[in-house]
Amino acid sequence: MEKSSKNKLDKEKTSEVVLGFGISRDFVNEVRENINFLDTKFLKKTVLSLHPADIADLFEILAEEHRRILASCLQEKLPAETLASLDEQVLNDVIENYKPGVLGDLLGRLDTDDAAYIIDSIEEERRDSLLKQIATEPRELIVQALKFPEMTAGRLMQRDYVAVPRYWSVGQVIDYLRGSVNVPDKFYSIFVVDPRHSPVGTVPLYKMMRSKREIVLENIMTNNPILVPVNMDQEDIAYLFEQYDLTSAPVVNIQNRLIGMITVDDVVEVIQEEAEEDMLQLAGVSGDTDLYLAAWQTTRRRFPWLFVNLFTAVLASITIGIFEGTIKQIVALAILMPIVASMGGNAGTQTLTVAVRALATRELNASNALSIFGKEILVGIYNGVIFAVIVGLLAAFWFGEQGLGIVIALAMLFNLFVAGLFGAAIPMLLQRFKIDPAVAASVLLTTVTDVIGFFVFLGLAYIMLVN
Amino acid sequence: MEKSSKNKLDKEKTSEVVLGFGISRDFVNEVRENINFLDTKFLKKTVLSLHPADIADLFEILAEEHRRILASCLQEKLPAETLASLDEQVLNDVIENYKPGVLGDLLGRLDTDDAAYIIDSIEEERRDSLLKQIATEPRELIVQALKFPEMTAGRLMQRDYVAVPRYWSVGQVIDYLRGSVNVPDKFYSIFVVDPRHSPVGTVPLYKMMRSKREIVLENIMTNNPILVPVNMDQEDIAYLFEQYDLTSAPVVNIQNRLIGMITVDDVVEVIQEEAEEDMLQLAGVSGDTDLYLAAWQTTRRRFPWLFVNLFTAVLASITIGIFEGTIKQIVALAILMPIVASMGGNAGTQTLTVAVRALATRELNASNALSIFGKEILVGIYNGVIFAVIVGLLAAFWFGEQGLGIVIALAMLFNLFVAGLFGAAIPMLLQRFKIDPAVAASVLLTTVTDVIGFFVFLGLAYIMLVN
Repeated sequence: MEKSSKNKLDKEKTSEVVLGFGISRDFVNEVRENINFLDTKFLKKTVLSLHPADIADLFEILAEEHRRILASCLQEKLPAETLASLDEQVLNDVIENYKPGVLGDLLGRLDTDDAAYIIDSIEEERRDSLLKQIATEPRELIVQALKFPEMTAGRLMQRDYVAVPRYWSVGQVIDYLRGSVNVPDKFYSIFVVDPRHSPVGTVPLYKMMRSKREIVLENIMTNNPILVPVNMDQEDIAYLFEQYDLTSAPVVNIQNRLIGMITVDDVVEVIQEEAEEDMLQLAGVSGDTDLYLAAWQTTRRRFPWLFVNLFTAVLASITIGIFEGTIKQIVALAILMPIVASMGGNAGTQTLTVAVRALATRELNASNALSIFGKEILVGIYNGVIFAVIVGLLAAFWFGEQGLGIVIALAMLFNLFVAGLFGAAIPMLLQRFKIDPAVAASVLLTTVTDVIGFFVFLGLAYIMLVN
Repeated sequence: MEKSSKNKLDKEKTSEVVLGFGISRDFVNEVRENINFLDTKFLKKTVLSLHPADIADLFEILAEEHRRILASCLQEKLPAETLASLDEQVLNDVIENYKPGVLGDLLGRLDTDDAAYIIDSIEEERRDSLLKQIATEPRELIVQALKFPEMTAGRLMQRDYVAVPRYWSVGQVIDYLRGSVNVPDKFYSIFVVDPRHSPVGTVPLYKMMRSKREIVLENIMTNNPILVPVNMDQEDIAYLFEQYDLTSAPVVNIQNRLIGMITVDDVVEVIQEEAEEDMLQLAGVSGDTDLYLAAWQTTRRRFPWLFVNLFTAVLASITIGIFEGTIKQIVALAILMPIVASMGGNAGTQTLTVAVRALATRELNASNALSIFGKEILVGIYNGVIFAVIVGLLAAFWFGEQGLGIVIALAMLFNLFVAGLFGAAIPMLLQRFKIDPAVAASVLLTTVTDVIGFFVFLGLAYIMLVN
């Protein structure tokens, strides 16, 4: 206990420090005021002094009408990187206030992956007119990127990289980098390619910096570099970067030729996105956060899940309905009913969430599935025994009836066993059938624990308590 | 629909490719067989040809007794990095098979942060004897690291970095790096310090590589670099790296002097950990995954949450108990009861999860809390109206009683409003009181939606339907 309160204190201290980097509440209020006054000069000065990512946050925090005014104020002064950091919904609000010409210039300055994200995020009817405003060279790369499926390497990669032949020396590379203008803004490794332009090695910059000018690259390069196929899913890319501590990786086409580079900052975003997606989907919120959507749009996006859930609830009701007569005789059953179902749902959710997460991080896979499955069933039985005793005694004393205690104890034992069984089995089966376990798992689980919970409890009561 | 099936196909294709990097099921089976045969030679050859992170995965997949045998086989040949990649539970299984002397050597070769993680993860009674086996210089750094609170910069940082004065030229730095042995294994930026050893700028290596030898650092350095105070929480550090696309950051003590460096690979792990923690905690699994714990230990760790949940369920039962007489008269109430509570719980969980996640990523903060709160209440009301109509009609037709339809419709409307209200309010309030919203939020929410759901539904029935 002492330790956790200590951590909390530390957190308090440091969060002030962090606020020094981001944007404070006072700052946002000041901006709001000056938007109301339409003080363009003030807005330009203060907002443009922020980091592009912080400007994006500011846009996201502001209300829709304020976003529009601020966007109109900043116009072509807006850093292009800010657009790439905006949530889809907010991005559309912001760019509505831009002439296609101005936007085209901004997009032409971005890395291909960022520009493609923006084009892909805006409303369809605007895309073509906007693309036309981008200079020919970046436009062609953006159009190519958009041909790759969403959430694959083709979308994540940037088209600029540094590739040199294996017989070059460190000195040659340095001279080339110093002279060339055709070098990416940021890069962490030199890619070594063969005459077919296939990557055969990588040299991290820190190794480069420590090597004498005359050293030839093939003597210091990492052989068999990890290559990312252009159609690789972003989840797999995130796995590679995390597992092998990569800062950048070469992207290759089906002919194994180098066509792009993925850098760790893109992957950090992917990791956040994927974790967020799983977490929200488990709770019945599809895809990315709906934080910035209007209330009505949010309602429409959340409706389908609630509707599916209504079916589950109705199924549970039908199950209870079978035992109408039994409940009429023993009203205590109606009172205790939710305990069995709720405990089953919660125990199952624990197992389910551990499994969904472990599948996503690949800690749970074909090699250990069986032993984890067996363990979770055992956990269900242990929990079942413990709570059977607790709840059985509770019910027996509450209603002064031993039989009722025995019925609920047996139901609890069985339902917690079922919770462990299905909590582990459902995500594994969904994964096997190539369905994202995070999407469907929790509604399936609740259906099982509710229906079985009610059925076993009321059924046992019917058999054992009804004369 | 077409698109999602296409994505699935792509996923299928690429997951084979990824398996080429990681370890396959067949490989694991082969290793298992050879562990049973105690074929030390085979095990050393094949296992040691893997990447250290893959060896760690292999240990995690194997059963406890297999882990021990494999560890005994590998002994001092085991890459030190593998130990740093192991889950805490598995780490303890593995190191039990090492003599302190061998382990001390392995740990001395690691970065300070990794060695400190290992010392901190092993059972307490072994720590001192192990520390004694580590060479003096690394041991002192490890002991220092362990004095910082867990999950702060002091633990994450490594003590090696490259720091040079501002008046040095690019050429001087390159010559220094080529000559010095006292340089970290990996680094992405040069830190520029003043005579007090306070960081005043950073120069990324890619900028270094592109600059002529005679250029002086202060002319190319990024001024006002982002500094990480040594007591900063790892969640805040992850925020900084993500927000500003950092690959490394200088860590400073309270005197603002440079004492270490945090690199992006450490932060990638933190991001995974923090997302995992929130997701598991929302489901009532404390802290990190319990995947590798034995069944009984897992049960013990999950018990407290289930026990708290039992209180919630009992509270709900007591609420139902108040209306015993009403249920006796109208058994249909017992049948429909779960629908109201379950829909409230699910709608509330949607809101809650979006809010918990947005608080973690700081998308939800003091500046927009009020407007998000208002929106979620509105979503609750919209959902309430929609499902009031659906469920009202359903109940009226099912039981052929209009009054029952009206009662459940009103209860649904009210409970979904409550779900939106509390789903948004609970995490925000917990955060305000410095309690991690992911820990306590869902049990609080279910208590509210269950108790209010049952109370309103049965209460209205008592008022409107009982003569």
